[in-house]
Amino acid sequence: MDKIKVTIVGYGNIGHGVHNALKHSPDMELVQIITRDPDRVRKEVKGVKVSPIRDFSKEADVAILCSGSRSDLFNKETDTERLNTVSALDSPLTMGQGPYFAQFFNTVDSFDTHARIPDYFTCMDRFARDGKHTSLLSAGWDPGTFSMERLLGHSFFPQGCHYTFWGPGVSQGHSDAVRGIKGVKDARQYTIPVKDAIDRVRAGECPEFAPREKHQRLVYVVLEQDADTVSIEQEIRSMPYYFAEYETKIEFVTDKELLVKHSAYPHGGFVLTSGYTGDGNRAMLEYRCEWGDNAGATACILVACARACHRLHAEHAFGAFSMFDIPPAYYHPASREELVRTYL
Amino acid sequence: MDKIKVTIVGYGNIGHGVHNALKHSPDMELVQIITRDPDRVRKEVKGVKVSPIRDFSKEADVAILCSGSRSDLFNKETDTERLNTVSALDSPLTMGQGPYFAQFFNTVDSFDTHARIPDYFTCMDRFARDGKHTSLLSAGWDPGTFSMERLLGHSFFPQGCHYTFWGPGVSQGHSDAVRGIKGVKDARQYTIPVKDAIDRVRAGECPEFAPREKHQRLVYVVLEQDADTVSIEQEIRSMPYYFAEYETKIEFVTDKELLVKHSAYPHGGFVLTSGYTGDGNRAMLEYRCEWGDNAGATACILVACARACHRLHAEHAFGAFSMFDIPPAYYHPASREELVRTYL
Repeated sequence: MDKIKVTIVGYGNIGHGVHNALKHSPDMELVQIITRDPDRVRKEVKGVKVSPIRDFSKEADVAILCSGSRSDLFNKETDTERLNTVSALDSPLTMGQGPYFAQFFNTVDSFDTHARIPDYFTCMDRFARDGKHTSLLSAGWDPGTFSMERLLGHSFFPQGCHYTFWGPGVSQGHSDAVRGIKGVKDARQYTIPVKDAIDRVRAGECPEFAPREKHQRLVYVVLEQDADTVSIEQEIRSMPYYFAEYETKIEFVTDKELLVKHSAYPHGGFVLTSGYTGDGNRAMLEYRCEWGDNAGATACILVACARACHRLHAEHAFGAFSMFDIPPAYYHPASREELVRTYL
Repeated sequence: MDKIKVTIVGYGNIGHGVHNALKHSPDMELVQIITRDPDRVRKEVKGVKVSPIRDFSKEADVAILCSGSRSDLFNKETDTERLNTVSALDSPLTMGQGPYFAQFFNTVDSFDTHARIPDYFTCMDRFARDGKHTSLLSAGWDPGTFSMERLLGHSFFPQGCHYTFWGPGVSQGHSDAVRGIKGVKDARQYTIPVKDAIDRVRAGECPEFAPREKHQRLVYVVLEQDADTVSIEQEIRSMPYYFAEYETKIEFVTDKELLVKHSAYPHGGFVLTSGYTGDGNRAMLEYRCEWGDNAGATACILVACARACHRLHAEHAFGAFSMFDIPPAYYHPASREELVRTYL
């Protein structure tokens, strides 16, 4: 059987994780890495074609886009009205790497800027259709498997409450926000779900939680020399959205402590459905994940999604899709008959 | 918008649960109940057409088959070779209600005799295709959502171990087995998952468990007058498959105790994936459900599956399918755009 040919676009933590996950997928093979920094990647990776972002081979069944959502995949300025005025994108900078690469490849990505997902969908749908390609967007765990579990929980139990808790784990966004403060040399922010809140939902309550009742924040900060701890603490605690609405614990640590104790990027979370059957009996669903490494786990899910994307494309389903549109069988390499025998 | 017209076949616990779940699904309506005992059901249910099993209306978008797997849906004697010799089924008794009704309706069922699922698939596929119908088989929680979670866990993390634990909850099959013993008037069997085993998997171990290491069995027995407790205890403990391989606790109770303390049919369970990312970091997935009433929960899932089945049929996907073939969006009444906005 022909292997599914995969191109990786962007070789940071997720790209690296995808590369390693592909080694455990005998039905797929990595044929190319596209990167802005081919010299660095060529030193790191042997035996794989490495292409610069403007001069690459188009021979791949699917491209896994591993660049950042915020700065690379989709430009902040892109509005969907512009779609009518543009016929083709000749640069990954015009609207972002997502729509650019959707012209040339079937694509999978983990775009996670929630507020921009509908616009991203519209834009990707346009360029994927034009190129007769299939683009699977916002795949991973949240958005991704968590989104699926929210949808399934609500479909099966329309009466009831639905909750998502994140952590315990490192939030890159919150860590970056602290690192942006003057006097901060480095920082790591852990999001901690409030156990009491989870237990209340598990026990069948349907409370409305304020943000601080669902999650706590724990920040480890390395200071620049002579930085003022008091003002930095205050600045962290008062950041709107990021910290102001939460109980935040701050600890100042040394470079070495951060390196030794906080070099891993664990994450995880819970999707809870606290519902009722038609007769009013309790129905509780809990989906929980625990990752030793956030990017590595996202990468594993993206690889299964690349397989699904390739199969969707084989059915001539062109345009933009989410994991909501994927039959579970498409993620697995085995035949339908074997899946029924093994998993049903 | 036209409502999805539903026929219920079989009005026991699950049929009753489906009826109640439909009341919370404004996009669907119950148009008919088909039953072997129309007199009883007409007394119980008002305002719905009740039809005997051999004289029913075929006007429905989907029929939810709520009869038992063991005796009604699919005959024990049916082998797939017979399919070539039979052109049409003129009785629900010939091969079972499943293939019979697949000739006239799109169908959804919760067929759960695991060993016979492949044969059931072959048979249903044949009669559903002949009738240009869509049949969604073995839907519910196990087989059903649990099957999906096993498949998804293995798709995302092909390295690692996969476990299913059932309970705490009442097993009908085991209760029936005890009730079949001479001298037993009534019985209720609880399957209890072994917490230590679950904790080992959660902690990242991949043990091979013997049956007794995963589940315990707790049996409440009401005796006939003058029955011999010692021989009954021995007979229960030595039943192969059901009890012999497990640690089994037996308690003798009165009729009244059974009625007061054990009239509910709770159930639930866990699907655990203890895997690794490509880089060898830990990845743990846990899917857990807790039902106040087993049949009522199965019924809620069947109703969402009926919606999905109707949509699959609208695409002219004829034949037999499982939940592995269903895009999650099909279970929910909202549009794709709304699902992306609400759940992604």
